[in-house]
Amino acid sequence: MTPPPPARPGDPIEAVDTPALLLDLDAFEANLHAVHAFVAACGGRVRAHGKAHKCPEIARRQVAAGAVGLCCQKVGEAEVFVRAGIRDVLVSNVIVGESKARRLAALARGARIGVCVDSPLQVAQLGAAARDAQAPLELLIEIDTGMMRCGVRDTSEALELARAIDTHRPWLSLRGLQAYQGRAQHLRSPEERADAIARAGARVALFRAALEAAGHRCAEVTGGGTGTYPLELAGGAWTEVQPGSYVLMDADYAANLPAHGAPALRQALEVLCTVITARDTHAVLDGGLKAFAVDSGLPVLPGSGWRVRGLSDEHAVIVPGDDARALAVGDKLRSVPGHCDPTVNLHDWIVAHRGGRVEQAWPIEARGALF
Amino acid sequence: MTPPPPARPGDPIEAVDTPALLLDLDAFEANLHAVHAFVAACGGRVRAHGKAHKCPEIARRQVAAGAVGLCCQKVGEAEVFVRAGIRDVLVSNVIVGESKARRLAALARGARIGVCVDSPLQVAQLGAAARDAQAPLELLIEIDTGMMRCGVRDTSEALELARAIDTHRPWLSLRGLQAYQGRAQHLRSPEERADAIARAGARVALFRAALEAAGHRCAEVTGGGTGTYPLELAGGAWTEVQPGSYVLMDADYAANLPAHGAPALRQALEVLCTVITARDTHAVLDGGLKAFAVDSGLPVLPGSGWRVRGLSDEHAVIVPGDDARALAVGDKLRSVPGHCDPTVNLHDWIVAHRGGRVEQAWPIEARGALF
Repeated sequence: MTPPPPARPGDPIEAVDTPALLLDLDAFEANLHAVHAFVAACGGRVRAHGKAHKCPEIARRQVAAGAVGLCCQKVGEAEVFVRAGIRDVLVSNVIVGESKARRLAALARGARIGVCVDSPLQVAQLGAAARDAQAPLELLIEIDTGMMRCGVRDTSEALELARAIDTHRPWLSLRGLQAYQGRAQHLRSPEERADAIARAGARVALFRAALEAAGHRCAEVTGGGTGTYPLELAGGAWTEVQPGSYVLMDADYAANLPAHGAPALRQALEVLCTVITARDTHAVLDGGLKAFAVDSGLPVLPGSGWRVRGLSDEHAVIVPGDDARALAVGDKLRSVPGHCDPTVNLHDWIVAHRGGRVEQAWPIEARGALF
Repeated sequence: MTPPPPARPGDPIEAVDTPALLLDLDAFEANLHAVHAFVAACGGRVRAHGKAHKCPEIARRQVAAGAVGLCCQKVGEAEVFVRAGIRDVLVSNVIVGESKARRLAALARGARIGVCVDSPLQVAQLGAAARDAQAPLELLIEIDTGMMRCGVRDTSEALELARAIDTHRPWLSLRGLQAYQGRAQHLRSPEERADAIARAGARVALFRAALEAAGHRCAEVTGGGTGTYPLELAGGAWTEVQPGSYVLMDADYAANLPAHGAPALRQALEVLCTVITARDTHAVLDGGLKAFAVDSGLPVLPGSGWRVRGLSDEHAVIVPGDDARALAVGDKLRSVPGHCDPTVNLHDWIVAHRGGRVEQAWPIEARGALF
């Protein structure tokens, strides 16, 4: 049921069938090495977030470039990454359900597996599954950093979970805290982001102190994303950071004003489309809502002089600006999606290219790994 | 690379792993038979739109219930439907590129294949491909009905295309016109929809008259969708209609005021999610932007008293109203997506159920068939 790849090695970019995801390898590698070097210089570790790319080949390159492992949001993603040879995977999300707990415990037979919890039911399900599989799971207590989403909200809840984890020794152990401030990633000004992460850091310190005072060790505090990772590192409360979009980038992240000291990131991800109708008033591309996620805005068409007016299921209607270049039926146009993660999730292949040629089409194996 | 199904036959709904698409078979069958009977009573034919469901099992049931065939938007979708045994498939979209033309012509060796054109380049590519494959393709000239998307805009363009098609005999022939007014589908009042379709009908009559006056026969005029199909039938200009959402339905279509005489449609499609975090202020479901398309609004939670505050990649944060029922971690909640087509495209399986039990999980084989 996987569609065939849209390109073959050696093809010129213009021969890629459309719509297709493109990955500029020069930009990808520059982002990868710049962020990993920056994090290392800060004394931190990168746990690369696989939810952004869902692609084993990218995951392997992240580990080869120094990431301690991957994180992901779904058990199905963890299955793909472990199968692809990643030996250290954290599900940076709370999961609920006996079936999911059993699948995760099965992975722990062959890899180091972490997972987050914020309620006693999750601990009970994971404990039973780990014992049945005779495979250890390392748990992180997720704390609510101010997002009002998942995570415990006061230290008494965290202490209750830590005690519950202890009752499942040796199959469960406490690795530490998951502390992610997702809303801060997209605050435009560095000052706003710094303020949000400073407050999250104070929460981390509070929870860590309460747990350690009760004899529970927090070896790791993990969290942070592409928009804030230098701030988590500078604050000193986090031991590892979880950037994901940094290797791809998107129009929404590009709108963030640069953060203090972080390397500038290049746009590595694009969607290639073909002009299927061309008029003096507008043109139509062959990619719509099934090729682009629009939750963070419409795609943009850098350097073309054209602007996306709107998307329908399979079409993008684009309109020319004053400096628009002429477009004819059959022309191919590159675009930058508003939000990389859910856009990548719409595609089965990402076409890695360099110097105008396709190097390889990589399968996005964890695409659709929803549960 | 296809994730395993989220349920087995006989499972209670509560055992379905989440997030998962559910199809209420009673509602699906009621919608299917009501619309097909209505169209037949009007003297028209249903060509069911497979872009909505992308599912061979649903396609086969539509043909068994009287549909003359399927339509779809992509060559990759046509490949899936032909492989599944559908003998009459129309790509109700213009396609560009030699590779796509060749793939389509290959399908025409074993099925009746139609496709739309609005420019001479498309005719040339399809003509060459059909000749090389020694397989006939039937072409429909797409006309712009007022959407300002694809489609020819004046009769001289249509006549030029009809003459171009003639030069590729016997491998290309003109079947007629594709005339779809997509914007009209979601106009809320029946009067607005009727006005838009009346204007589209006048355009159809104009183009048809011009083509027939020049000796080009238009055996079929096809178009229309779930929001307007009674209007296309009543106007007399269309011979077949292309509803797709009618078997599934979504929150956006449910907001349309009923059209003259059309059967009321039931909500057959839902997304099942699990509560992973529960607070007095909010709860969190395990489905986000990768489980729901949000281009036509957030999902709704009928009968629960809860409202979706927002979605992030893998989470829906929901907030209680005054009459909200209590929710605990592990509870499962049904929701109705804003827009069915791109939501279905996020899932690999649709769980068909009746009487509280799973009958079967059907693969959404054309999911991700982007090109």
